[in-house]
Amino acid sequence: MRIATFTSEGHRKVGLVSTDGMTVTPLQLTQAQAEGGVLTLIESLADGGSLPEVAGPAIDLDNVVLDAPLPKPRRNLWCVGRNYHAHAKELATSVFKDNAARTDEWPIVFTKVPECVVGPRDDVFVPSEVSTQIDYEAELAVVIGKGGKNITRAAAMSHVFGYMVVNDVTARDVQVRHGQWDMGKSFDTFCPMGPWIVTADEFDGTRTRVRCWVNGELRQDGPTENMIFDIPTLIETISRGITLYPGDVIATGTPAGVGMGMSPPRYLRAGDVVRVEIDRLGAIENKFV
Amino acid sequence: MRIATFTSEGHRKVGLVSTDGMTVTPLQLTQAQAEGGVLTLIESLADGGSLPEVAGPAIDLDNVVLDAPLPKPRRNLWCVGRNYHAHAKELATSVFKDNAARTDEWPIVFTKVPECVVGPRDDVFVPSEVSTQIDYEAELAVVIGKGGKNITRAAAMSHVFGYMVVNDVTARDVQVRHGQWDMGKSFDTFCPMGPWIVTADEFDGTRTRVRCWVNGELRQDGPTENMIFDIPTLIETISRGITLYPGDVIATGTPAGVGMGMSPPRYLRAGDVVRVEIDRLGAIENKFV
Repeated sequence: MRIATFTSEGHRKVGLVSTDGMTVTPLQLTQAQAEGGVLTLIESLADGGSLPEVAGPAIDLDNVVLDAPLPKPRRNLWCVGRNYHAHAKELATSVFKDNAARTDEWPIVFTKVPECVVGPRDDVFVPSEVSTQIDYEAELAVVIGKGGKNITRAAAMSHVFGYMVVNDVTARDVQVRHGQWDMGKSFDTFCPMGPWIVTADEFDGTRTRVRCWVNGELRQDGPTENMIFDIPTLIETISRGITLYPGDVIATGTPAGVGMGMSPPRYLRAGDVVRVEIDRLGAIENKFV
Repeated sequence: MRIATFTSEGHRKVGLVSTDGMTVTPLQLTQAQAEGGVLTLIESLADGGSLPEVAGPAIDLDNVVLDAPLPKPRRNLWCVGRNYHAHAKELATSVFKDNAARTDEWPIVFTKVPECVVGPRDDVFVPSEVSTQIDYEAELAVVIGKGGKNITRAAAMSHVFGYMVVNDVTARDVQVRHGQWDMGKSFDTFCPMGPWIVTADEFDGTRTRVRCWVNGELRQDGPTENMIFDIPTLIETISRGITLYPGDVIATGTPAGVGMGMSPPRYLRAGDVVRVEIDRLGAIENKFV
């Protein structure tokens, strides 16, 4: 299934997107439930509930506004740094210089605040009073379905609800100067996500590629096979001693090709449009303003 | 005021602690409101609401169980690293070695997940399968009242609701090996807090000291005047481009004397009891199990 959070006729709804990506069929939820987006469904299913009935006819996707699938995650999103070999190399002398030289021992894990989430077509605000080095990071994000602690690699995939596209927008200067990255990753609107969640029965994060264009120019194009730590390993690592909950998000890191990695670096400016696409998941496209 | 979240006769309540610290008087809240603890009040007051009426007679504090004042913060807690001069020095060759040598330019800011919060007398679980280097960090925590973005130093104190005691429990080995600190700070039960929130009309975080004992032995004793970045500066820094919300927590860093800073290091073990006390705020005391 592809499950979307969307707004139609002034009301937020949750619905199933058709295989051809042309329509969305709303599900039966109260308005309060629908406000939580797909998170409401994930929590209900994890609690033993079943998928709600269809609530009406299919609506053309052209006639709705797609919202972030998880408009308000339950806590900060988990994010992984330095998880594609080529990206580790391109930033070896900048943001990763302070981390252990060996890239394959432990993943770098940081967070983004839930309130920086915006929808797949929403504007991203450039905080020009704080940063002059705004960068994109195209990423595959895993959404946890069944929570748990000390989840083994072998069991990890049974805890995944689905997948979506995320742009882990980053203020490089802020990321570097505070030593820890959370602030440089958490400016308002710095987490566009969508366009919907594709459930784990249809997609497992392998045999796909993550691409990013800036104003139509291809900047990133990496197969997820190039991840240093695969999805089961990430789930095992993060859940060691830390309980994961239904709806938790793990953004799995970005391939090579970020603006900071270019010589000279090419940062984003107001007016730029960034498109992130993952084969078989879909695309998000956000204007920076 | 001192506002506590507590459990009495099987129900969670929110109430006002008497000046002598002997009794607590419950406030009129629905059970659902009371489940949110003091956060419910903070959000309601920030929305223009007023303090609820008293709901009954004062209860002896000995007859209630104090819960964490914010049993479930709205998102990860903001935490500040390396914020006392002497502490920066004691860890200069370990956890701070990767950060810029100059300690006075930018604060280090990271987060702890909201689900690791426990109450002022609750047990802390040692995740021995993940870490052999569990450490304490006694800290003064600021609780935001009125939200906002780009808050200036001059306006910062008007955004503070109050203050409480936090033990920023840390797994040093995990903190270091992942480069970013959020995981090593976020193990289940790693954030004891309390004993209540003292409101900003009674206390401003200055002219006080933060102390920590392990099994009765004084380990940390630092005046908050020794902070590198004071509270208004922290609020100004974190809110630059990032909206703060009512109930956000900023743990302001720990004084010298942590276990990792000793030679040889002295880490916590199951059976240890850690007491953190801040003059005019109160004390929390947690057994590690």
